[in-house]
Amino acid sequence: MKKASVAERGSTAHGRSPELRLIALRGLPEVPRGADLAGLLTVAAARGGVRFERGDVLVLAQKIVSKAEGRTVALSSVRPSALAREWAPRLRQDPRLTEVVLRESRRVLRMTERALIVETRHGLVCANAGVDRSNVPARAGARVTCLPIDPDASARRIAAALERRTGVAVPVIISDTFGRPWRLGLVNVAIGACGLRVLEDLRGSRDAHGHLLRATILAVGDELAAAAGLMMGKKEAVPAVIIRGFQYRPAREPATSLLRPPAEDMFR
Amino acid sequence: MKKASVAERGSTAHGRSPELRLIALRGLPEVPRGADLAGLLTVAAARGGVRFERGDVLVLAQKIVSKAEGRTVALSSVRPSALAREWAPRLRQDPRLTEVVLRESRRVLRMTERALIVETRHGLVCANAGVDRSNVPARAGARVTCLPIDPDASARRIAAALERRTGVAVPVIISDTFGRPWRLGLVNVAIGACGLRVLEDLRGSRDAHGHLLRATILAVGDELAAAAGLMMGKKEAVPAVIIRGFQYRPAREPATSLLRPPAEDMFR
Repeated sequence: MKKASVAERGSTAHGRSPELRLIALRGLPEVPRGADLAGLLTVAAARGGVRFERGDVLVLAQKIVSKAEGRTVALSSVRPSALAREWAPRLRQDPRLTEVVLRESRRVLRMTERALIVETRHGLVCANAGVDRSNVPARAGARVTCLPIDPDASARRIAAALERRTGVAVPVIISDTFGRPWRLGLVNVAIGACGLRVLEDLRGSRDAHGHLLRATILAVGDELAAAAGLMMGKKEAVPAVIIRGFQYRPAREPATSLLRPPAEDMFR
Repeated sequence: MKKASVAERGSTAHGRSPELRLIALRGLPEVPRGADLAGLLTVAAARGGVRFERGDVLVLAQKIVSKAEGRTVALSSVRPSALAREWAPRLRQDPRLTEVVLRESRRVLRMTERALIVETRHGLVCANAGVDRSNVPARAGARVTCLPIDPDASARRIAAALERRTGVAVPVIISDTFGRPWRLGLVNVAIGACGLRVLEDLRGSRDAHGHLLRATILAVGDELAAAAGLMMGKKEAVPAVIIRGFQYRPAREPATSLLRPPAEDMFR
């Protein structure tokens, strides 16, 4: 996998301004369990007049990955535990939803008026363990989606399938919208990744003025996810975005590298 | 100010894929106190073959705004307080830097091995109150930069000056790289804004499947800042990025709208 180079595309300090492009892939059909996502994405790209190129990064919304992996649950099949029945009214939730959230969690950090803030089995900290009702077709009845079992493995599988189809090795990021402390609103973050450094460690390197950069590790994976989030929105049904022209560093780094170890976290 | 419309640019569900472009502005000279940033940016854009267009959003790195506003401090001019002298060794900091951080803060939340996590006078929660040594020219001696006094006012002034120069009303976001709980690495967030909704409230609207979206407020301002962060890096001296093709909602909303009120914050 070759590092995409903006510089190669003709940009010196006073040359043409370097660009990065985000391309939305739309027109995907409803994704059934077992769907060949790489195939669907290639078709959607071709319909939009787009081919995957070397240097592209593909960001996928978690929901289509979960659907393809059959990670949806019919609430009618869920029998809520005593704890779920006790907590659900305080959360204004269906007790069966609360039950699914508890099953996906390894630790509950806080209870808000409408969500549990939990640490998922993956180690992600988020509301309701990422269990969600939106963007599930109504004909499916009362169903919810859960996060993929292993989003990094999902990203690796999709990247491999895409490379077989297109001949191009494209890093894949799986993103979901999470809330955060201190600031309002949701942002897209990387919950799965394959093919690129999600953390870029600039410590020990020097800035443009020759100063050593000490505490500068950029969460590149999360910034890529957030950028794609600008095109995904929630309503617009854009489940995949190609980022073209970003100088990523090829690597086998999982998105779990972005998780702060609980023991080092002063705000958990 | 007209809302930029991706749809207008010829994208139906099966039409050409919609695109968003990020354009890096480089080649800015070192920014002195009192500099006309709008003028410098217009020149840098023209040199890179770029003109500001209706629908563009401009993201500026905090550091050039702080420098233009003279928000740098010579450490030689700082007399550290007793508290700064007591804390500095535990932070492995110059006591004068600790003193500047304390002056910029209204509350200290935590002390780490190398930084104070504080609430700044603006209400931002971040390490060392955003006081920073990197990207300050060495010839300036031991100087640090502080955040602008009122980053929303800075954004308004720059947007107004840019409109006078170019005839185009372009929303402005001022961004800085912040750490966060739960996840490793820094991400760019919006600390100042003008001309667009930084929070997009989708509550009460419906997703593509007709479900009501309940808890879906997107932190658009932060996602725009993060996207620009992909081009800014730290080393590359890209202090300004144009985002072209994003469907923003024009508004007079400040970036302080992104601050979670402390009383509602369960992780402070």
